[in-house]
Amino acid sequence: MLTSRSVLRALALACALVVSTQASAQSAAARQAAAKQQPLPATYRPEFGTMWTFDAPPLDYWRRTYGFAPDQKWLDHVRLSSVRLPNCSASFVSSRGLVMTNHHCGRDCTAASSTADSNYIQTGFAARTVADEKKCAGLYVDQLQSIQNVTDRVRGAITGKTPAEQGAQRSAIIAQIQTECNQQTQLNCQVVSLYNGGIYSIYRYRRFTDIRLVMAPEGDIAFFGGDPDNFTYPRYDLDLTLLRVYENGQPYSPPDYLKWSPAGAVENELVFVVGNPGSTGRLNTISQMEYLRDIGYPASLAAYKRALAIYAELARTDTSAARRYQNDVFGVANSQKAVTGYRVGLLDTLSMAKKRAFENEFRARIAADPNLQAQYGGTWDAIARAQQELASFTPQLRYRSFGGNSALLQLAAGLVRVATESSKPDSARLPQYRGPGLNNIKAQLSQAAPIDTAFERLAIAAQLRAAQGALPANDPFLQVALHGRTPEAVAADLVRNTRVGDVAFRQSLLQGGEAAVNASTDPLIVWVRAVDPLAREVTTRANALNAIIAANSEKIGQALFAAYGTALPPDATFTLRISDGVVKSFPSNGTIAPYKTTFYGLYERSAAFDDKDPFKLPQRWVARKNNLDLATPYNFVSTNDIIGGNSGSPVINRNAEVVGLVFDSNIEGISNRFIFSSDVGRTVSVHSRGIVEALRNMYDGSRIADEIQGR
Amino acid sequence: MLTSRSVLRALALACALVVSTQASAQSAAARQAAAKQQPLPATYRPEFGTMWTFDAPPLDYWRRTYGFAPDQKWLDHVRLSSVRLPNCSASFVSSRGLVMTNHHCGRDCTAASSTADSNYIQTGFAARTVADEKKCAGLYVDQLQSIQNVTDRVRGAITGKTPAEQGAQRSAIIAQIQTECNQQTQLNCQVVSLYNGGIYSIYRYRRFTDIRLVMAPEGDIAFFGGDPDNFTYPRYDLDLTLLRVYENGQPYSPPDYLKWSPAGAVENELVFVVGNPGSTGRLNTISQMEYLRDIGYPASLAAYKRALAIYAELARTDTSAARRYQNDVFGVANSQKAVTGYRVGLLDTLSMAKKRAFENEFRARIAADPNLQAQYGGTWDAIARAQQELASFTPQLRYRSFGGNSALLQLAAGLVRVATESSKPDSARLPQYRGPGLNNIKAQLSQAAPIDTAFERLAIAAQLRAAQGALPANDPFLQVALHGRTPEAVAADLVRNTRVGDVAFRQSLLQGGEAAVNASTDPLIVWVRAVDPLAREVTTRANALNAIIAANSEKIGQALFAAYGTALPPDATFTLRISDGVVKSFPSNGTIAPYKTTFYGLYERSAAFDDKDPFKLPQRWVARKNNLDLATPYNFVSTNDIIGGNSGSPVINRNAEVVGLVFDSNIEGISNRFIFSSDVGRTVSVHSRGIVEALRNMYDGSRIADEIQGR
Repeated sequence: MLTSRSVLRALALACALVVSTQASAQSAAARQAAAKQQPLPATYRPEFGTMWTFDAPPLDYWRRTYGFAPDQKWLDHVRLSSVRLPNCSASFVSSRGLVMTNHHCGRDCTAASSTADSNYIQTGFAARTVADEKKCAGLYVDQLQSIQNVTDRVRGAITGKTPAEQGAQRSAIIAQIQTECNQQTQLNCQVVSLYNGGIYSIYRYRRFTDIRLVMAPEGDIAFFGGDPDNFTYPRYDLDLTLLRVYENGQPYSPPDYLKWSPAGAVENELVFVVGNPGSTGRLNTISQMEYLRDIGYPASLAAYKRALAIYAELARTDTSAARRYQNDVFGVANSQKAVTGYRVGLLDTLSMAKKRAFENEFRARIAADPNLQAQYGGTWDAIARAQQELASFTPQLRYRSFGGNSALLQLAAGLVRVATESSKPDSARLPQYRGPGLNNIKAQLSQAAPIDTAFERLAIAAQLRAAQGALPANDPFLQVALHGRTPEAVAADLVRNTRVGDVAFRQSLLQGGEAAVNASTDPLIVWVRAVDPLAREVTTRANALNAIIAANSEKIGQALFAAYGTALPPDATFTLRISDGVVKSFPSNGTIAPYKTTFYGLYERSAAFDDKDPFKLPQRWVARKNNLDLATPYNFVSTNDIIGGNSGSPVINRNAEVVGLVFDSNIEGISNRFIFSSDVGRTVSVHSRGIVEALRNMYDGSRIADEIQGR
Repeated sequence: MLTSRSVLRALALACALVVSTQASAQSAAARQAAAKQQPLPATYRPEFGTMWTFDAPPLDYWRRTYGFAPDQKWLDHVRLSSVRLPNCSASFVSSRGLVMTNHHCGRDCTAASSTADSNYIQTGFAARTVADEKKCAGLYVDQLQSIQNVTDRVRGAITGKTPAEQGAQRSAIIAQIQTECNQQTQLNCQVVSLYNGGIYSIYRYRRFTDIRLVMAPEGDIAFFGGDPDNFTYPRYDLDLTLLRVYENGQPYSPPDYLKWSPAGAVENELVFVVGNPGSTGRLNTISQMEYLRDIGYPASLAAYKRALAIYAELARTDTSAARRYQNDVFGVANSQKAVTGYRVGLLDTLSMAKKRAFENEFRARIAADPNLQAQYGGTWDAIARAQQELASFTPQLRYRSFGGNSALLQLAAGLVRVATESSKPDSARLPQYRGPGLNNIKAQLSQAAPIDTAFERLAIAAQLRAAQGALPANDPFLQVALHGRTPEAVAADLVRNTRVGDVAFRQSLLQGGEAAVNASTDPLIVWVRAVDPLAREVTTRANALNAIIAANSEKIGQALFAAYGTALPPDATFTLRISDGVVKSFPSNGTIAPYKTTFYGLYERSAAFDDKDPFKLPQRWVARKNNLDLATPYNFVSTNDIIGGNSGSPVINRNAEVVGLVFDSNIEGISNRFIFSSDVGRTVSVHSRGIVEALRNMYDGSRIADEIQGR
């Protein structure tokens, strides 16, 4: 699925780029950039994907490729029919405000709507009448009203010489633009930085806050196949929630909504996905990608493996542990699958060769213009040098730390560092302890939280064991952390004897300040005090290098926009995009994966696994099987460009009719994060005909089906 | 499927190892070898697979692994219930001589049984009564009566000093043993060389020659999914033919036949495959495997790619060509899939590391015994040196030749070489022209054969173009073959102006002998005459090296048997083997491939491809769908060790009951040719319950179903 632990991280990043501001007229910078834009035949690079913004649709490219280029009315209609949920995408699909999104996007509301006698995640829910629709507390949907380029105004306000001055000025002007816009328009205004600051655009949203649950199927059919089938295809999921937007207590009648296609997605037809992709890394330089491929991701994968081994070890000796850790295990397994997929793309020599060819061309374009060369010519090498230096002490950075999976270690490190950092001026503190950070961390430390000592012992031991393997034998950390003892012995002693898990003990240390922490004889506090200087040494060095990389990455984005204009789409920013693609089968597993699946396949996969979890069918699907036309299209794949955040996006045809509902990517598509390719990567969607078939014949939902089909 | 172009090549090789002979008593050499046999825990190596001979079943290993070791009665019963077809495996499955094999194994009989009004490949066939069963002309089945070790007698007869003397003596003693056995037993006796001559065993077969067709489904259901699904899983094929053995015009009642399992294959159960695997390469040394991986197979794959490009080019300009070349294209695509699979195994660094570890241990065992070291110690290095030298001129060997895909080139080369070789004494000729070879080649050259000039032009041009890419620029071949012109121009001229395609012209040159060939001004003859010395230079050198490799490979086999005895099974020889395995799902495509499929999946795959060829269902399967219980198991996978020749093998449980019918390997299993692994490689079989369900409810075949179920 496309919202997940890693995707939530991506969204956190994306949201950092989404800040409110106010409108300004089409800027000189944007006009200049548009004039500079290269003709698409020469410059469109498939590896940058197709996440186009609505203010720069690639009409020539579409016309040339598909013989189809929509007019402004079509684009406006599609944009206004699309909405954004807090962490997903969605769309209006009826004249009475019905909103279609994924089951996992509406899951909180579906769970919260359950009563003492009912569990709608387990049983599904379909409101018989409008009166039965259930209010979703806290949920809202945002509808994008307009986009305007404010690059000149943002740039004009940045006059400082140092990055710190510039950053403060940027934040200030963005806040000012946002406040003005909010006041003038009564809309929710957000400034979006595209191309890492190559363009700043104001996105103005209308927010709807009365949202109600209309229909959600059983979790077991929405997420049929569970963790194994997650991120794969062929697929058989009804990953659907239907909500309704209300205004003044009545169903809202949106002027723009998507009509329903009678045929649904058909093989080889052009389709568009309209939604809010969260975060991509296509602007990464080769040296950044090589670092991730060779160092960053392998280390993450090793950590996931350690975590899974711990859960497996706990489950081996404690039968209830398997159930207790189920969600954690799923989260780690999902991240493992995603990161493995990202890395597959980076390991593909052909993809990397394409990326390298692009980078060479890009650098040549910059070098050809003396002004651009002066501004941006040095960025690639600056990043590469910083990455190289980072790589030289990555094991130290990773293992001289209080990370890993241990909660106790993190709590103890917080206590020691709060004490040290509190006594410094704000600007001299470690970054997380600056501004409101310090008090947030204090608050976390003051809260009671259960400590799973069996898990803690294994987690600390595993982390130290890995450190032994990764660090040179003479690294001072090993001496300080182990004193010649085994990781398992050290971990057992620390966990057995520390009081850090006791919230009262933590509160007393917080109150006692630096003196109390320094005087503490708690073995874990003592241990952290001893290790901390070694950890700080490498963290400080890494922070400086990461700042260089961040500053130069921003320049790369600006250089890209200067050289190519909007011929290449910007990286994803959890803002509205339109991606073109084709409904298409792909080579898989030595044969062909078909462009669609049908309900036959759902029953096949369940029967093939003897109806065992996670391939168990909900009772309704067993009892009512004969109601269904099993040959009805159920899921399908297309070559559109999506990523986490696109969950719930509508798939539409050239008539702007709904043909499907995006809910996942196949395993081959995961590597599209860095280098897009439609050779085998695919977007996976629920087929519009499958939705109607299920509504009518499984959920007694003809009322709803009639509404979306306009009957 | 498991008989195929490449498999037929494998079978040709296997048959070279199967020659008739006569029984002798259990030999001293065998007793000595058995005494030397190492205990299995220390020496069983999974990478050698599980193709066990019936005279050396690994009872301890089975007992330890599965808690099951059959007694001699069980083994004899299973052996006598199994039979061999000319190129497939099969088994008796009823008391009245019913024989079960694959559809593709009985295909010739099914096609030949069709009448003017009927095409049984298209419509399927099920005899209503015994009287309706159709005689299969020329078909026979062989039943293995007994095995006896004759190593001493063969070895004792080999006293010569030179390989040529030894070879002649070996052939003579084998022929003598066979003739004696045939006369004494009235059986069909064949001496089999196992472990490349480590053991010689006499296999005595009873041959049945009155074979009749009882039932065969439509080709489209037997080979559902066609070329794309070939060598893959999940799968949905009813790859079945039922034959009946007759004796004296009446159904034969075999004393031993396999009973039918009521439950069929069940997840995680122990199952055995009993059949005749054709050829494996597990005795190859690391240097041989590296040569195939880095040089041999890449060159073959490049050649397949060239051939497919030619067919595609022809189809582009000529709409009828696609149909005309369909079989050729399928053959090349099948080889391409197989060779790609073989190479995947060789590219797997983990598998190769295991193989390397084994080779080191093997060599250490030999080195530990001075006698063995003296006999075999030098073989690995001798092979490696020869492979290395071969590698040094592989491009010359491949492109200074008359091979490739052109028939004209092969004909012209035959004419020129017949003329030259005829004038030499037999032993001085190129190997193919020795003995009866010369006349065979003359006969081929004298036969009319259509020449496809469009194809020829493209094939010769592609071959020359590839030579340009592969040979150093100063290779004399390029000068002689091209004279500075483009490959396309040379090919066009040669094909346009040669008369070699004309059988009368060829016959005149054959009659005219060397003088006529030397005087010919036919441009293709002139071209071959010019190239031939360059070709002979590298061929002669390669022949000498290949002879060294062959002689040393034989020694490796003998050394293996000397060091490990029958703890490791010998390479496949198209003789009866029993392989243990487990019915088991496997990780695939980011998720799990289930251990079985059901009829739901057949309808899913057809519907997902909109019932398009090769996923089109026969009319019967559309019309009678509702007769079926769609949840019935249809195909399944297990970890047994199979290869081409195993087609039609029964899969049996520990009660010796039929639970399935082998028909293919998954794509991951193809690489088992060299290094066996059951991590993801699987045997694909038709499930016994699927067979009965189809017989009863699709083919009005309750008569037959009752018979195999013993009702």
